[in-house]
Amino acid sequence: MLKSNKKTSKIYLDCASSALSTSSNPGAIHELGVKEKNKLENARTTIANILNAHNNEIIFTSGATESNNLAILGLAYPYIISPYGRERKKEGVMPHIVTTNIEHASVLEVCKHLEKTKQAEVTFVEVEESGIVNPEKIKKSLKKNTVLVSVMYVNNEIGAIQPIREIAKEIRHWNKNRKKVFEKTFPVPVFFHTDATQAVNYLPVSIPQLGVDMMSFNSAKIYGPKGVGVLYVKKNTPISPIMFGGDQEFGLRPGTENVVLAVGLAKALEITEKIKDKEVKRLTKLRDYFIDKILKIKNDTNSAMAKSVSDLGIILNGNKKNRLPNNINITIPNIPSDLLVIELSAKGIMTSSKSACKAGDGKASHVIKAIRPKAKPDRNASHSDAGRETDGSLRFSLGRYTTKSDIDYTIKSLSEILTKLKKWYN
Amino acid sequence: MLKSNKKTSKIYLDCASSALSTSSNPGAIHELGVKEKNKLENARTTIANILNAHNNEIIFTSGATESNNLAILGLAYPYIISPYGRERKKEGVMPHIVTTNIEHASVLEVCKHLEKTKQAEVTFVEVEESGIVNPEKIKKSLKKNTVLVSVMYVNNEIGAIQPIREIAKEIRHWNKNRKKVFEKTFPVPVFFHTDATQAVNYLPVSIPQLGVDMMSFNSAKIYGPKGVGVLYVKKNTPISPIMFGGDQEFGLRPGTENVVLAVGLAKALEITEKIKDKEVKRLTKLRDYFIDKILKIKNDTNSAMAKSVSDLGIILNGNKKNRLPNNINITIPNIPSDLLVIELSAKGIMTSSKSACKAGDGKASHVIKAIRPKAKPDRNASHSDAGRETDGSLRFSLGRYTTKSDIDYTIKSLSEILTKLKKWYN
Repeated sequence: MLKSNKKTSKIYLDCASSALSTSSNPGAIHELGVKEKNKLENARTTIANILNAHNNEIIFTSGATESNNLAILGLAYPYIISPYGRERKKEGVMPHIVTTNIEHASVLEVCKHLEKTKQAEVTFVEVEESGIVNPEKIKKSLKKNTVLVSVMYVNNEIGAIQPIREIAKEIRHWNKNRKKVFEKTFPVPVFFHTDATQAVNYLPVSIPQLGVDMMSFNSAKIYGPKGVGVLYVKKNTPISPIMFGGDQEFGLRPGTENVVLAVGLAKALEITEKIKDKEVKRLTKLRDYFIDKILKIKNDTNSAMAKSVSDLGIILNGNKKNRLPNNINITIPNIPSDLLVIELSAKGIMTSSKSACKAGDGKASHVIKAIRPKAKPDRNASHSDAGRETDGSLRFSLGRYTTKSDIDYTIKSLSEILTKLKKWYN
Repeated sequence: MLKSNKKTSKIYLDCASSALSTSSNPGAIHELGVKEKNKLENARTTIANILNAHNNEIIFTSGATESNNLAILGLAYPYIISPYGRERKKEGVMPHIVTTNIEHASVLEVCKHLEKTKQAEVTFVEVEESGIVNPEKIKKSLKKNTVLVSVMYVNNEIGAIQPIREIAKEIRHWNKNRKKVFEKTFPVPVFFHTDATQAVNYLPVSIPQLGVDMMSFNSAKIYGPKGVGVLYVKKNTPISPIMFGGDQEFGLRPGTENVVLAVGLAKALEITEKIKDKEVKRLTKLRDYFIDKILKIKNDTNSAMAKSVSDLGIILNGNKKNRLPNNINITIPNIPSDLLVIELSAKGIMTSSKSACKAGDGKASHVIKAIRPKAKPDRNASHSDAGRETDGSLRFSLGRYTTKSDIDYTIKSLSEILTKLKKWYN
């Protein structure tokens, strides 16, 4: 540190708060702390404006997993932990949560934990074979003690877009009517949370438009830095913190705020919004081109592997149109999808077999399993066995830097791999 | 992405896992994912080696607040949530936690929450006027149902170094004897956690030497990136995750691992270890010089403000010698410490009045309050009123870039400010 008294030089004697002056603790009341606090609040404002929300409805977390945990555990805890049960009129009433059977692990495992430990009752609504949940089924699962519905905006594996607005409408309707019926015994409205992690790049994120009470997303999926996420929490949503300490983030998330990452997330969201329409158009074309190419491989009679590939019965998982513009998810029966990921990787192509959060556990994807029993082969696929439970899936998720020639090279490489692996599907 | 098949170019079709190929998801099984996983595991090994611990005992978290929450809530939950209560022989036995009254908010508030919500019984052992806890008092507070002792390695406000080894010894002794006595009714040993956040820069961190079962620290305090911390968890310590999702971090902390930050933390710890001895020597000198200068201000008869300052009765909070080499914490009775922080800030000097995690809440520091009723003025201070509960404190925490001339300028500036603020202490 310079010793001069020039305005530009500072003597930093707050190393116990944050070692480096360049990333001062935004909780500090000195000049550098206040500057950091301002940066943080500007990032919050940027995000609030994009979501059409208020500043104090934006909670920074360490990522979408924490956001989802905070939303669900934070809403359930007041009913579980007695001194917090301010809304719990009747002792012994267990809170009920409604979700789907294709949520990300960070929603599914929280719900399973609450169910297993008898802290909450959970209904896992089954999605249709398209991978999309029927709002009617969500509505039918609502009960007197339902406190939360959590449905992802877009499924991370098959890209299926869920009818968030319709579900929100059903919940609003339910809350209006339930007041009269349950007012005296369980006067708690149902709150609606969505995990929008996969949606933010390509779908509208305006809260009033979606009608949700809570929404999770992170920075890493929208080309921002890793290690930071957001939980949008509508005013008056009765959630409690799940960790304890300082009063940061309106008392909902303790720990020194990570200004650098928050600013990065805000910037990433700004860019995402700016190029969204253009990217959706570009990637939708690219996706449809990719899907057509994959499903038509067998019709290419000039191809050396035409005969064998035609026997593959490639299945497109999820609805062809109602899916994220960047998602292609296929099943090639009888061929271990992890092997395909590794073979493609050897050719310099990075893909995935299922959620990385669950990769390598040797189990089949719960999402593919959920849509599989009812799944029919796509019209372009000829395989009669509509996939067994053990069949894996192969996900190609395109992005900002994906080009048409990437796709062409990928199709070519996949064909070569399939020919090589012929022995597997004989 | 380049379309060529050169080994250096990759086609990245895993954007749903992590948007950017340059920070691939370490859970992915493709080449870039495996590379990230390797970087993460190398960072883990670096840290494990420095702590003399095993790789699978190092859990990456989002920071020390999360580490502390995971340690305490994670250890308490199995006793609270019934299906997890594998060790809980007798229904209705509440777990008991022992801690001190000067812990950081991220330990104190967790304990208060557990106590308030009747999930655990907590004993807050009072520290001595030196700010140091007596291991004998910790020992005396142990009970049949004690499951955890959590004592910080160094206090963040006054830099008081706690007798961790001695406490660990008492607990080992207790555990040996309690086996015979409680074997049948409550056969759970006491585990020992320490929050080492402020210690890592200057004190030994070898686990076998300290004898703890769990240890928290973060990266931001050791000149690494913000947003990442570690919880060391000794093998066979029965803690449960407090968030749910993927199986990352040995099932104890879900969410995509933040490789960049983990690598940064490992590097920061490496550097810290390398320069530790040298820094301790350098800063101890600087600290003692600073303390002497501050307490001697009044004896400087050439100083214009000598008379008034001599009436200030500056108190050095905490023991003069048994404190961190970079910590100076004083109380100037009757002068609001927040005002001093702001006045110093205006002169380009960044200090703090108390923990940034609790700054601005208008309340007196719980640490100063804890040592105040018994506190006597330092021998060099003449003020007879040994500080009232409302008196604040001023912390100067030196660091890697602090020089002697920084200190001289700070002393000079503080004297000027005190002269200006004369009206406050008349």
